[in-house]
Amino acid sequence: MLSVQRAATGTSTRQLGVRTFFGTSSRAKQRLVILGSGWGGYEILRAIDKKRWSEECSLDVIMVSPTNYFNFTPLLASCSVGTLEFRAAVEPVRRYTPDVIAYTAWCDSIDFKHKKLVCMPATSPVTFEGSQTQSNGGSDVNESASLVTGNTEKFQLTYDKLVIAVGAYNQTFNVPGVKEHAHFLKDIRDARRIRTRILECFEQANQPTITDADRRKLLNFCIVGGGPTGVEFAAELHDFLHSDIARHYPALARMAKINLYDVAPHILGGFDTGLQEYATAKFKREGIRLLTQHHVERVEEGRMFVTEEGEVNFGLLVWSTGLSPNPLIESITELKKDERTKRSLLTNGTLNVLKADTGAPDPDVFAIGDACTIETEALPATAQVANQQAKYLTKRLNRLIKSSSASASSSDAASADAAAFKFQNAGSLAYVGDWEAIFDRTKAARGPKGKETGRVAWLLWRSAYFTKTLSVRNKILVPMYWFLNWIFGRDLTRF
Amino acid sequence: MLSVQRAATGTSTRQLGVRTFFGTSSRAKQRLVILGSGWGGYEILRAIDKKRWSEECSLDVIMVSPTNYFNFTPLLASCSVGTLEFRAAVEPVRRYTPDVIAYTAWCDSIDFKHKKLVCMPATSPVTFEGSQTQSNGGSDVNESASLVTGNTEKFQLTYDKLVIAVGAYNQTFNVPGVKEHAHFLKDIRDARRIRTRILECFEQANQPTITDADRRKLLNFCIVGGGPTGVEFAAELHDFLHSDIARHYPALARMAKINLYDVAPHILGGFDTGLQEYATAKFKREGIRLLTQHHVERVEEGRMFVTEEGEVNFGLLVWSTGLSPNPLIESITELKKDERTKRSLLTNGTLNVLKADTGAPDPDVFAIGDACTIETEALPATAQVANQQAKYLTKRLNRLIKSSSASASSSDAASADAAAFKFQNAGSLAYVGDWEAIFDRTKAARGPKGKETGRVAWLLWRSAYFTKTLSVRNKILVPMYWFLNWIFGRDLTRF
Repeated sequence: MLSVQRAATGTSTRQLGVRTFFGTSSRAKQRLVILGSGWGGYEILRAIDKKRWSEECSLDVIMVSPTNYFNFTPLLASCSVGTLEFRAAVEPVRRYTPDVIAYTAWCDSIDFKHKKLVCMPATSPVTFEGSQTQSNGGSDVNESASLVTGNTEKFQLTYDKLVIAVGAYNQTFNVPGVKEHAHFLKDIRDARRIRTRILECFEQANQPTITDADRRKLLNFCIVGGGPTGVEFAAELHDFLHSDIARHYPALARMAKINLYDVAPHILGGFDTGLQEYATAKFKREGIRLLTQHHVERVEEGRMFVTEEGEVNFGLLVWSTGLSPNPLIESITELKKDERTKRSLLTNGTLNVLKADTGAPDPDVFAIGDACTIETEALPATAQVANQQAKYLTKRLNRLIKSSSASASSSDAASADAAAFKFQNAGSLAYVGDWEAIFDRTKAARGPKGKETGRVAWLLWRSAYFTKTLSVRNKILVPMYWFLNWIFGRDLTRF
Repeated sequence: MLSVQRAATGTSTRQLGVRTFFGTSSRAKQRLVILGSGWGGYEILRAIDKKRWSEECSLDVIMVSPTNYFNFTPLLASCSVGTLEFRAAVEPVRRYTPDVIAYTAWCDSIDFKHKKLVCMPATSPVTFEGSQTQSNGGSDVNESASLVTGNTEKFQLTYDKLVIAVGAYNQTFNVPGVKEHAHFLKDIRDARRIRTRILECFEQANQPTITDADRRKLLNFCIVGGGPTGVEFAAELHDFLHSDIARHYPALARMAKINLYDVAPHILGGFDTGLQEYATAKFKREGIRLLTQHHVERVEEGRMFVTEEGEVNFGLLVWSTGLSPNPLIESITELKKDERTKRSLLTNGTLNVLKADTGAPDPDVFAIGDACTIETEALPATAQVANQQAKYLTKRLNRLIKSSSASASSSDAASADAAAFKFQNAGSLAYVGDWEAIFDRTKAARGPKGKETGRVAWLLWRSAYFTKTLSVRNKILVPMYWFLNWIFGRDLTRF
């Protein structure tokens, strides 16, 4: 199973991100390609045994992701109102280069038969006059990639092992205008745009040239989707409006409203009923309007049309109604897909993808996170699941390195005879505002089953963020910002 | 001199940012309008005696500035390479509202005779369908402003005292293409754009689809202007390329070049000759190309044309060649201007502007910072001068409050009989990279005259940033980021 195709380049000079060792060309290198730097992909990048493979020269790791960072998604709602600074909620992929190779690129297509990927740069094109396309001859940069014949814009990579961790896109249910006029909350750029927009709404409303009627429209904040993301954003926004905004824009703060829409009869669908009721009661007490069983028909600039209400004007619309398929997953025809959600690849218990024709697992291709559905078990599309799957897979891949370095003719330790992945439900947490959270452990795998609300749950919610995923740097910065913003208030500069 | 025109509204309800007191309508309020939130304007906002006037109800303070923050300019070069986080180098104007009133707006024109300003909102226009312009009738928001007759987009303010602290614009010497294709470094938005662009250059150069020739063009960093801003940016960029970039993009770091252009024969024109030579030698040792006596003729996307060199390709061009007039200053015809620079108003020794017709000082209008030239003394256009002028003026304005609250028929303590402003040169500092700085105290007003170079100067350079201007919050954040980035390296995420 070991690839030998890179042995020929083993004596070349040291290149960007690819460790080659003089005199070691007789030992072939495995190449692991990870697609995506989210909860699944970044965890593998972080936890894979980089020491061993750099010493023993048995594995190249390549990350292909359109961003060069990982979003610590549960902190995005905090970032979007300034409780946290943006960079405290992201982790750089570049931290691991040149030990690993990283390309800021989209994976366009996968040739499973020849173990090849075609990728498209996710940076803006370079436009020097007289520029020529890389002939891939003399450069010592990016020797790991080659050009696609007849295409000057794409490049290709080969893999021995492939992890598909590309996640999913935002679901809009084809409501017209959502992509153009609403904000999602899945990436740090979304959080930055939302923060800038909220502050702009208040600065616009503060202008003497507009009417009170328009001020109320501008300060009408709408959220569509009553899941954890929508609820936490509503809670953070409420905190922000009732602290820093109320202090520094008192007359305008009184005009501001928060509205949370959902088509379902209750918010927080996945949570225990008691906790749903707790959150509902709390939101009502705080003046957040809950518009359940409401349907948005279309969105335009500054307004949307709701079946039950008619035209609704807003200054900001945040849209968070779940997940839709990643185009890469949609384009794959060689593998079995989850027919129910259509947004993920079907895998066996060891997370190997299943071939569409024979149904047999591909021993070298794995799918994790939102891009994967295990055929025997329906798991929620959460960070927790993706992260646990990545940890499971990393262990297997690390064993592969171990065994391949122990014997030259490695047996594939990542083969299907490994123990199946088992999800350990640690419970679900959601912030509901005003230093209170809810914590649902009714389905927890270990520890006391039950639920928590209020300050105790809030403490658990905050401490939950100190996972291994967050770097030491951010483990210092996150509480630092919490502390500074608690003392001095959130920063209100808009730039 | 006290204005009584607002007395009529003194019994209205408490409005946004305007303190009115029931039953105090017999006491009229002075209104101080500050134009600009830079080194001059923000210092007045910060230091004016807000306690006294809120207690004694003698003064309304209104800030009119196109941004709702103050840029701590000497830290912008650090921010532009990620040594510091952006928000650590800005201070919010909103910290002081509603005690003061703030409008995010441009001052369009000033009617000195009727003591009126016309302002234009600096936020994007509000576009709700059926929106009507504020009739200024029923709202309790922004009662301090009124609409301009026949114009739905502008508003007007009256003043009793006016401080013009609008600063200056970037000088381009009408070189075509500079505004479109170069980056300035005067605002935190510039710093953010530069940081994003530097990281993008490396991610673009890392794509397998481009040639080494294009990589070298992309990683050619050009700076035009050898003053302190250009020099400090070159130094910070050098540090960045030789630490974090060299560590994480080793092959690309070797292709990167820094070029510093100036038309003059030496960089750091205003500094002592010995220090100029020190900086020049240091830059040469560090591999920064110094292209003095070079002239840029025009700039296009990704390239510029230099008289002495011909076409030069670049990935990033930073332009810092001094100051040009602010359009507001240009448009003022009623006041005397500095005929030499044409970018500032002529003032007397007490910073009162001089009328164009009679040459007499206007007792109620002041100019400070880059917008002002004292007729008897040519001072450099620096933050230090602006800040000292603001401190001087704040003392006078605070005396005015004191005297106006002490006696109902206030004598104008801010009149021309006050002692003239005296600049206390504290010396000039510039960072030259690699933990070294230069400190020129040869023209210093107090303390030991002389100059420092190297680490001692670097320590002085860093400690100089702990002025009163920086808030406690940023006094904590700035060293925190210095420390974290020293330990963990600068963050390389591009978003």
